[in-house]
Parts: sequence; C-alpha cells; structure tokens
Amino acid sequence: MTPKSRADAEKLDAADPLRAYGECFDLPEGVIYLDGNSLGPPTKKTLARLRQTAEEDWRRDLVKAWNTADWIDLPKTCGAKIARLIDAEPDEVIFCDSVSVNIFKLAAALMDARPGALAYECDEFPTDGYILQGLAQLTGAKLTTLNPDAPHAMADQNISVLIKSAVNYKTAAVADIIAWEKAAAAQGVSIIWDLSHAAGIVRLDLKAAGARYAVGCGYKFLNGGPGAPAFVFASSDVAGKLRQPLSGWMGHAAPFDFADRYQPAQGVGRFASGTPPILSLSALDAALDLFADLDIGVVEAKAKALGDLFLARTAPLKLASISPGPEQRRGGHIALRFHHGYEVVQAMIARGVIGDFRTPDLMRFGFSPLFLRYTDVFDAADILIDIIKTEEWRAPHYAKRAKVI
Amino acid sequence: MTPKSRADAEKLDAADPLRAYGECFDLPEGVIYLDGNSLGPPTKKTLARLRQTAEEDWRRDLVKAWNTADWIDLPKTCGAKIARLIDAEPDEVIFCDSVSVNIFKLAAALMDARPGALAYECDEFPTDGYILQGLAQLTGAKLTTLNPDAPHAMADQNISVLIKSAVNYKTAAVADIIAWEKAAAAQGVSIIWDLSHAAGIVRLDLKAAGARYAVGCGYKFLNGGPGAPAFVFASSDVAGKLRQPLSGWMGHAAPFDFADRYQPAQGVGRFASGTPPILSLSALDAALDLFADLDIGVVEAKAKALGDLFLARTAPLKLASISPGPEQRRGGHIALRFHHGYEVVQAMIARGVIGDFRTPDLMRFGFSPLFLRYTDVFDAADILIDIIKTEEWRAPHYAKRAKVI
Repeated sequence: MTPKSRADAEKLDAADPLRAYGECFDLPEGVIYLDGNSLGPPTKKTLARLRQTAEEDWRRDLVKAWNTADWIDLPKTCGAKIARLIDAEPDEVIFCDSVSVNIFKLAAALMDARPGALAYECDEFPTDGYILQGLAQLTGAKLTTLNPDAPHAMADQNISVLIKSAVNYKTAAVADIIAWEKAAAAQGVSIIWDLSHAAGIVRLDLKAAGARYAVGCGYKFLNGGPGAPAFVFASSDVAGKLRQPLSGWMGHAAPFDFADRYQPAQGVGRFASGTPPILSLSALDAALDLFADLDIGVVEAKAKALGDLFLARTAPLKLASISPGPEQRRGGHIALRFHHGYEVVQAMIARGVIGDFRTPDLMRFGFSPLFLRYTDVFDAADILIDIIKTEEWRAPHYAKRAKVI
Repeated sequence: MTPKSRADAEKLDAADPLRAYGECFDLPEGVIYLDGNSLGPPTKKTLARLRQTAEEDWRRDLVKAWNTADWIDLPKTCGAKIARLIDAEPDEVIFCDSVSVNIFKLAAALMDARPGALAYECDEFPTDGYILQGLAQLTGAKLTTLNPDAPHAMADQNISVLIKSAVNYKTAAVADIIAWEKAAAAQGVSIIWDLSHAAGIVRLDLKAAGARYAVGCGYKFLNGGPGAPAFVFASSDVAGKLRQPLSGWMGHAAPFDFADRYQPAQGVGRFASGTPPILSLSALDAALDLFADLDIGVVEAKAKALGDLFLARTAPLKLASISPGPEQRRGGHIALRFHHGYEVVQAMIARGVIGDFRTPDLMRFGFSPLFLRYTDVFDAADILIDIIKTEEWRAPHYAKRAKVI
C-alpha cells in the first residue's frame, strides 16, 4: 500500500477521493506544508468571506450587521457545522473564547456539580494543566496528575474532572475514548476531552462512547485562521444543569433584556461569555464549510497513509519516532527525535518544507489530507533525508531561535 | 458656541482640528453614523491591514507569520498603543479575551490578594455584574451592590473589589475617578475601572488619580472591529503580585518551554490566557494607529460639543434626557427617553441615521468625533424631529424586533 516510488505516489494521488479538496486552498508556490496541525492554511472561500465581512458587512452595514449578517448566531452556526465530525448534535456545540478559557469554564462547572480533585496527565499540552492549576488555586480544589496515564489510574482518587486529549499533541497517540469513559463512569469522573489535535482529522464517536464534554481548537485541522475561536461540546442531557462561572452576557438567556440577574441560556449556549471576535469567527465559519460533506473516516485514513509513507521513506535515517507506528491508530501528525531537530526543521523550511519543532528534540510533521498529496509527502521525505545526510542543518543561521518555535 | 443654523455648523466643521480624521474612514454614502459607541466603523487602513494579514501573512507565510508578522507580540503592541490614552505606561496594558473574561481575571486576582466582598452597582452594564455573580458562586465570596452609587457607600462593607464604569453605558455620566479612588484607598478596596464606553473618547488620568486596574473594550470608540479583543490595565507596581486563575499558556513566562508548572509572565503579560484571535487583533492593531498623535482632550471636547448640539436642536421635542447636560462632563453619547424609542430608532435607520435602542425606552446616540461633522449631527437632529413630529415611526414594520437591538 505504501508507495515505493514517486510514480506509485502519483498513482495514489490520481486515485485519491479527497483530491478535489486541494483546489479549495491557495497555498504558496514551492511550499509543502506539514504544519496544518499547528495552523491550518486558508481556503479561497475563507479569504473571500473575510473580505465580505470586513469590507461589506462591517463597512457598509456597520452595527446593523449583527442582524443583517447574522453575526449574533455565528457561535452556534459554527458549532453546528462541526457537530457531525465529533458525533454530537448541532445544538450541543458552540464556538467561543480559547481552549484555555473553555477548559476553565467546563472544569469549574463540573467541579461545582460534583466536588473532587482536578486531574490531568503530565504529558498533556501544558495549557490544560496550567488552567487546572489556576482553578485549583482559586477554589482550593485538589490537583492530581494521572500516573500512569491509564484509565485504571483514576480509581479511588475522588477525581471530579479529568482533562484528557483525544490525540496527544506530541505523539499523536489516539486515546481509547470508550475505555476511558467506562472507567470514568465507574468512578464518577467527568472527562473533558481536549480535541485540539483531533477535530477535523480523526473520527470521533464521542456520544456513542459515552463522552459528554469536550473542548477543541479551531485553527489546526479545521483551518479556521490564526487563533480562531475554540469550541465547547456539552451533551444536551447535562448541559442545562451546569453552572459555568464566566457568566458573561452572551451566555445569558436574553442578553438584550439587560436584566440584573444572570440567567443562563439553554444548553451549551450558556458557555458563551463575552462578545465574540467576529472577524476571526467569520473566517472560521467559512473554513468549516469544507467539512460539510466530508467522510471523516476517509480523512483519517489518508492522514494515516501519508504519515506511514513519511515514516517508511525516512526509515533509513533511523530517527526515533515517538508516534504510533503503521499498525496503530494515529492522529494527523508524527514526531521524530533528533538532537538538532530545531536546526533541521529550519533547514527544511528554507527548502520549502514547513514543519515545526517542540522542545527538547522533537521534529513534528503534520499530514493534513485536504491539501497534501502523496507526492508532496514523498518529496518532503527526500528533502529531510538530504538535509540530514549532507548535514546541511549545520549552517550556523539555522540555530538562531525565533520567538515562536 | 452651539450652532444655531446649518451655516454655523458648517463654520465649525471648517475650523475643526479633527477634520482630517474623517478622511481615514470610508463610511457608506448617505449614512450618519451615531453608533460608534456600540461598534466603531473601520478605517481604510484597518481594511487594508486585514487583507494583508489574511491574504499575505496567513496565506503566504502560514505558521511562520507568528514570527514574520510578529503576531505573537500583538497583544502587547496593541496595549502599548492605548496606554497614553488612559495615562498608563506602554507595558502596563495588554489586549486579550473579552471584557467579561478580563473582569473575571482581575476580580479573581484581586480577591485572592485581599479576600472580601465583590461589589458593583446595579446600573452597571449587565455583564459586569453577571461575571461577579459567577465568581461569587464559584468561590463563595460575598456579593454586594452599592446603594447609593457613591464613594461613601463603600464604607464598612469589607469590599475587596469594586467594578465601576468610568462612563456609564446608559447615561454617559463620567465617574469622578479621583474621589472614588480616594475613598477606595481608605477602605482597602481595589476598583476595576470598566473603560468600555470611555477609552478613546474621554480623557482618563488613571494613574494620576491613583487607579491601578482597568478593563475596556476595543470595538467601540477605538474602532477595532466587531467583537475586537478587550484590554487589561494593571499598574506595574502591583501587576507582578497578582495571580489570575485563567492561567493559560500565553500568560506563561516562557510559553514555548512547554514546562509542567505555570509561571506567570512579568507584569500585565500574565493576564494573557489562550491563543489570541489574530485576524481580529490585527484589525484592532491597525485601528489603534489613528490614536497615535491624537490629543484626547480635543476628542472629548468635540464629542461634548456634538452632543450639546444634538440636545439643543432636539430640545423642542421635550424628550427626557438621562445624560449629563451641557454644563456637565459627559462621555461620547446621550440617551433620550421615548415610549416608542425602538420604533423611532428604526425609522431613523431607514433614513440613514444609525443610533441604537436600549430597553425599556432609551434612544442612544453616539458622537464619535473622528468621523462625524457638526453638519452630520445637525442633520440627524432634524431627521429625529421630523420622525417624531410626523409620527413616521408608527409604520408597523418599525415595531418588528431584531435579534440584536
């Protein structure tokens, strides 16, 4: 299945059921973009929509655009568009704030519903732990880390809330949501699934697995734009019972009544807080249209095949992979260890292959299947091989650290 | 001083020191925009910047734009641009999240520093109270409302934090910041100034008045775009001692170290939380350039003169104003009562004069002086008079309520 030659890769591209999606993007010439897992690229329609929102809706309709362009409903409109991708109902998802802020809201609400410890695993994306540290300090709740990172580690710890990634940001390991939810139910633990590296790239059967809460990011595989608003999923059978403390006016049942007392909106709508950033939200709204008819299973399968191709082609380098291998389920990226990984990634960028680096020594490559071809990944692997074999990365300017790595 | 005829208004326009700023905007033909207090219009440069950010930086540089376009520093870059307007130092202000979320952060941090009640006044913009209600419920803190709304009402109540608008969102009354801060100091109260209706329109000598904390909105008089990120001001002598609970990775001292423990950034930088919405933040950044050389005293004086003109011209209607009169200091808007105010505002919009309505009976008109001329306000007053005298507002379609009012 994994192509052995460039001609084989070309054959796979020709037969690719997702091939037409590449036309929706407008990637720069000469770039192979292996960082859609960090910041997805814009679609052509996203760029057009942003011009529409700014130059027509805002400029021409001014404040009226809240009604005429339906800005007020965008958080729910966007939520409904991704519901199918995560096995939720359209009215169970809302876009608002950032992943960090949304974790705080959900964790605080769930701890309020059932007091107990706040838990996370040490290898989680740091902000998840940071937010729980902040919530624990504010409320006096106990904070615990899971060791080992396995469902049975939840037992007998009086955990109220566990934050857990569906796809790990470093390794791309995919969590067994069914197993975790089963163990959580036995212990009365509420799991908040962090879907930041999972939404739009792997199949997520959240409700079927018994999952009721999730947050996720709009700017990675969903291509919503830099810092795009994040989402909250709360199952309708429980959302209406939750009290989240960032009770801003946009989460009020009737925001324009300007009532004295806060009354939460029905369902997940109560997780809205302040006025949303409409320019960013409009871009996201347009980006999500790409997912309307997608079979997310096909997306996951192609991402896996692209990653497997990259691993197979670069195998002669004998780089240690911390990601699941070909025989396992994997998210949309892989991470390879190299002691001068930062420099190698810079040297690759100089040759048009954009990946990223994560401390201390991880080269991370994303395989966003809507715009990447098998030949792109084939060529990117060749460039990595060349840079390491020729030691091109040793040029001193590649060691200069940027602010954002 | 108040023009008695349109010719007089034309003379004032000709002599207006802010006249050139009108050229920076691109308002639609036939519109007199009296709602810059709710949503400021775009400047031409803002629209150009947004195209640059989306179509060049994001599309072309992709994830590298965090460095190449300096996205990572935008929260601080924007903060520095408004510092002068509120009498803060450039490194004491940061843009992030919404006003609602920022109130939560500051109030929680200040309550942590000195436990006590959370206080607000009932006539405050509702979200301010809603957020304190949420924080009180989460932490068990006492919640109190100030009655009367006067500095002496803070006495002997063990108040930790008071949230207070510098300019009231309904009346446009301007608070006596010096008097409030003096009384607050005597009682150990920390005041969070809500500058949403004040920043960019009235002179604010915060630090000179002893004020140390503020939040404010980017999309009203600052013209930052719909739902633009909000700001936090925390005085440098105290910011470094505050622990805010929404401790996301962007407020970490070294976010790209991916360390396990949260370590807050120095100063006000610790009030950042998740990844900021860059498209919205870029638009804001461009909009703020308009304020670089502005004398905010001149801005306030013109806003006052425009409002006085509107009040004088519409005086024959004998509408009750809830706003400060000509002899008092006032923010950038006025609110007039009329039992069918909603319909009147709709009828005005149909004739190109855009104001807004606030329940139960307030017609609110904003006088953003960077793009409004004296003749605009003169003409708008004539249209209001005509609509009320002819009862044009009684046409049934003007009673149809929109989602956002």
